[in-house]
Amino acid sequence: MPKLPDFERSTCPVAVCLDILGDKWTLLVVRDILLGARRFSDFEASPEAVPTNILSDRLKKLVEHGIVEKKAYSERPVRYEYRLTRKGHALRKVLKDMMDWGNQYYPETATVPGEGVSTRRK
Amino acid sequence: MPKLPDFERSTCPVAVCLDILGDKWTLLVVRDILLGARRFSDFEASPEAVPTNILSDRLKKLVEHGIVEKKAYSERPVRYEYRLTRKGHALRKVLKDMMDWGNQYYPETATVPGEGVSTRRK
Repeated sequence: MPKLPDFERSTCPVAVCLDILGDKWTLLVVRDILLGARRFSDFEASPEAVPTNILSDRLKKLVEHGIVEKKAYSERPVRYEYRLTRKGHALRKVLKDMMDWGNQYYPETATVPGEGVSTRRK
Repeated sequence: MPKLPDFERSTCPVAVCLDILGDKWTLLVVRDILLGARRFSDFEASPEAVPTNILSDRLKKLVEHGIVEKKAYSERPVRYEYRLTRKGHALRKVLKDMMDWGNQYYPETATVPGEGVSTRRK
């Protein structure tokens, strides 16, 4: 049973979801895994340019909450691959709805099939 | 056209969505409006106990981004009611999916029909 955050909020499942996922980066890490990222370097190469310390922190949190699992693919030095658990895959619908909403109301955003994401137009 | 945040990220519609909604409170304010909250006192009475300064800030942001509209219902003193725009109502799907995910993976959370939310069990 993953631990719930310390601060008290309601039992609303949306609040619990936001306690874990409610920031600007966590769901983008989940999205990157859905798009094929596996290794730390894959995430670092993401066009979001997530700062390294934030990336480490969010991957750790996702593992703690059972959304992502990590597995060593190299022993010396120890390096890990990250995969979504079933619970992580279940977030696909949330991401799909956010994508639809973004596409509908921010037409300058774009989902390029096969390319994932690209830099925002200025 | 609502302004986009200053910091650069990708054109991914999920990133744009999280730039606006990616925190622990904003979507709970949207949820409270969907559940019937209209006036500032309604939001303050929410079981989330959103701190007043955060509540003011998030309502302002939601208005700026065209997700919520506010209308004066009293002139002296000026007081406002808040309603979702069409763009705001379109977030219902995101909230529904978060609710489903929370209910599925955190069975201690509960959605009580008609009651909205209640305090988390300890």
